[in-house]
Amino acid sequence: MGHGASVHAALAAVVGDQHVRLPDPAQSDALRPYLRDWRGRYEGRCLAWVQPANTAEVVDVVRVCATNGWPIVPQGGNTSLVGGAVPDDSGTQIVLHLGRLTHVRVLDAPNLSITVEAGCTLDAVREAARKAGLMFPLSLASGGSCTIGGNLATNAGGTQVLRYGTARELCLGLEVVTAQGDCWQQLQGLRKDNTGYALRDLMIGSEGTLGIITAATLRLFPMPRGEATALVSCRGLAEAVTLLHRARQALDAGLVAFEAMAPRALALVQAHLPAVTSALPAAASAGHHGWAVLIEHTSPHSQAHAGDTLAALLADALADSLIDDAVVAQSERQRAAMWALREGIPLAERTEGIMVKHDIGLPASRLADWSAETEQAIGRQWPQARVVCFGHLGDGNLHYNVQAPPAQAHGDAFRAFEQEVNRLVFDAVRAHGGTISAEHGIGVLRREELVRHRDPAAIAAMRAIKRALDPHNLLNPGRVLG
Amino acid sequence: MGHGASVHAALAAVVGDQHVRLPDPAQSDALRPYLRDWRGRYEGRCLAWVQPANTAEVVDVVRVCATNGWPIVPQGGNTSLVGGAVPDDSGTQIVLHLGRLTHVRVLDAPNLSITVEAGCTLDAVREAARKAGLMFPLSLASGGSCTIGGNLATNAGGTQVLRYGTARELCLGLEVVTAQGDCWQQLQGLRKDNTGYALRDLMIGSEGTLGIITAATLRLFPMPRGEATALVSCRGLAEAVTLLHRARQALDAGLVAFEAMAPRALALVQAHLPAVTSALPAAASAGHHGWAVLIEHTSPHSQAHAGDTLAALLADALADSLIDDAVVAQSERQRAAMWALREGIPLAERTEGIMVKHDIGLPASRLADWSAETEQAIGRQWPQARVVCFGHLGDGNLHYNVQAPPAQAHGDAFRAFEQEVNRLVFDAVRAHGGTISAEHGIGVLRREELVRHRDPAAIAAMRAIKRALDPHNLLNPGRVLG
Repeated sequence: MGHGASVHAALAAVVGDQHVRLPDPAQSDALRPYLRDWRGRYEGRCLAWVQPANTAEVVDVVRVCATNGWPIVPQGGNTSLVGGAVPDDSGTQIVLHLGRLTHVRVLDAPNLSITVEAGCTLDAVREAARKAGLMFPLSLASGGSCTIGGNLATNAGGTQVLRYGTARELCLGLEVVTAQGDCWQQLQGLRKDNTGYALRDLMIGSEGTLGIITAATLRLFPMPRGEATALVSCRGLAEAVTLLHRARQALDAGLVAFEAMAPRALALVQAHLPAVTSALPAAASAGHHGWAVLIEHTSPHSQAHAGDTLAALLADALADSLIDDAVVAQSERQRAAMWALREGIPLAERTEGIMVKHDIGLPASRLADWSAETEQAIGRQWPQARVVCFGHLGDGNLHYNVQAPPAQAHGDAFRAFEQEVNRLVFDAVRAHGGTISAEHGIGVLRREELVRHRDPAAIAAMRAIKRALDPHNLLNPGRVLG
Repeated sequence: MGHGASVHAALAAVVGDQHVRLPDPAQSDALRPYLRDWRGRYEGRCLAWVQPANTAEVVDVVRVCATNGWPIVPQGGNTSLVGGAVPDDSGTQIVLHLGRLTHVRVLDAPNLSITVEAGCTLDAVREAARKAGLMFPLSLASGGSCTIGGNLATNAGGTQVLRYGTARELCLGLEVVTAQGDCWQQLQGLRKDNTGYALRDLMIGSEGTLGIITAATLRLFPMPRGEATALVSCRGLAEAVTLLHRARQALDAGLVAFEAMAPRALALVQAHLPAVTSALPAAASAGHHGWAVLIEHTSPHSQAHAGDTLAALLADALADSLIDDAVVAQSERQRAAMWALREGIPLAERTEGIMVKHDIGLPASRLADWSAETEQAIGRQWPQARVVCFGHLGDGNLHYNVQAPPAQAHGDAFRAFEQEVNRLVFDAVRAHGGTISAEHGIGVLRREELVRHRDPAAIAAMRAIKRALDPHNLLNPGRVLG
């Protein structure tokens, strides 16, 4: 029996023949979706691909892998933006795909909680909550593909963090399979539980390197009775930050989303996705010369309360010349158009050409200075490059992408500068007390930068924890820590 | 030089002579406040007591202790309810008191954050925020004594968790001195930061066993424009839980506190603190035969909005016979009286006599069944014992105290049953998917129970983490894990 055959046999003994696949040179594309990352930057090989049916099978697969020393790459929807979910090119790693763990185990409406398995897509979780008249607020553009296990493993963010927090804050408890092939659970849906170390929070955001999340209990929320959305134009980022502060005072937790878009981001959507901008209310599409801010306000009281309170905030801001213009969506169609503008930016960017992407975060009080300095520095170094900046301003988290000069928009010429661009952006971020990864995580892409970014004592603590929980470096090796 | 003198010299070399004290048999009371816990259940001895001035001195004290193998008990306000902050009786441990680390380092109003040192009292942090027109919402009865370092080390809860979360959710970042005498920081005040493992969340709630928190950056919130408080009477716990669900739908994040008090808790306050009940609005003090619920609602809009919305909720609940009675406070004096009722319960209990205390949490959906079953079981076993139940119903977290039979109210007779009472209560809690410590932590008091309560794989993970970060068991040994 060749090595491949014995690998197949060992895994098939756990999950059944049809749920194990080996790489087959004759069918080079069959496993490719699992070996290549979402952005197309990483493509690896695997020893085998295995899809257990439930937690007990995950336990047994991990035991087989541990016994044989086969490293495991846990995979959900494979939507990582930092290469966190695909195997490396050694061909020695097992892709453990969670795609069959899709049960909604319990929806406890009086407790406002739901227990789901890791392979449920985010949209499936949202839909299960909606059917019970409740809401699961995590909101990502990749909701139809990404899985809740991956959302938790990466502590996903998205557009409603301002109100509801990241995936970590939405999670009441986990079920985790350890590197030893044991399992622990904390799925009771408790709001408070101070019984020992925060294993839940440690697992969340550990990107599959400390344990394999197989199920989670999540917080649900009552459906708001009213929802109002506005598109606002501000002169610059500093004004948008001031508006944010005012909006928090006036709307408190009703302020659900506060998304910002720099002029160049809007121009790209206008250029490449004209249908999106033409669907906007006339006043909003008349031409934004400043920054645009998309504000979403919900109310537990009524639609009128949501709209009136938001309109009053914007009227005050207009009267004070803090903003230049504002439109409140008058229909679901207009609301959808505003979100389409915001969510169209990444596609418009890709259409425009290649870029060097960043996912940075800063204190609100430093954003405007940092942005001005960094854009100047980039302009000095690469006069034809164009910064495209947009994102979750309410959380101080911006996607800060340096688009190649028009002449190098396609092809690989600008890629040569990637490291240099990163260095410039990240050094400026650090100088202003920011983070090099606000929501995307570390994966492979930011592994070297992580060591530059955090205190040596913090890196040492992380390495000690990794060795303690996964002494044979079995779980997603080479991600987060090199 | 005797051992005591050499200990003194080594520590004084770091912090100066006057900030080290040795136990002195001739002055037996001088160190006693630091050696005896808040509830008077634990009294230990120490090798020395040391009070460093700042983080750099904490680092050096830890290095001296590590070199000499002296275990360290970090201490803030010494208000632990589980014996987590006093040394054991070996006389080998150093009490490292954080009481001189009291600076407010930065208050960044536009970023809604504040950076404070660990020895600041909770009230001092709240006051610093208030002076800037902002709010730090952590709210504990011991606010004048407890320190923010202790609040974070124990992941403190309190009366506003329902809206604002526990100490963990209020913390944006920490400064921590490790068992190796190194220091890491993450004090930039970032809303989102996915750069590696969640060391912050791991330290929070680790009760000084994984690192010493020396400073923290905390979230602040805009001051609400309106606040309304009501005292409501419900037939039983099940009705109170239904009211909670309705209140969450109607008030959403405006629902700041939802505190419940069983009839016997109210009766104790009436008996022992008559001034408190006489200050209540007439309708509220007319005699509660059922459970009382204290509801606090805040509004970012106005006082009228806070009051009207709460009144509308209660009118609906009355119309549906879900509640028997409700009074909305009409003055700050009435509001204070309502809170005095709730906060008077522990004192009334102590006046009544000895009890066996628990701090349990359950899913909202299981509270009523669990409570009925447990009270029956206690009645069968100890017919004269009386359950006094009250607390943070909005979080599913109740203080569940079994008061000794009247004949044994004073003296130690009932103490003999403590373990048996605990076993009965905790087994019932587990059977209903609850926790044995919702907010007080583990300390020494729940150390044995923790091992019974959590999965062996979770306990193994905790032990591995402890060994990894503190291999010589230097930090608060014997707390959390035995």
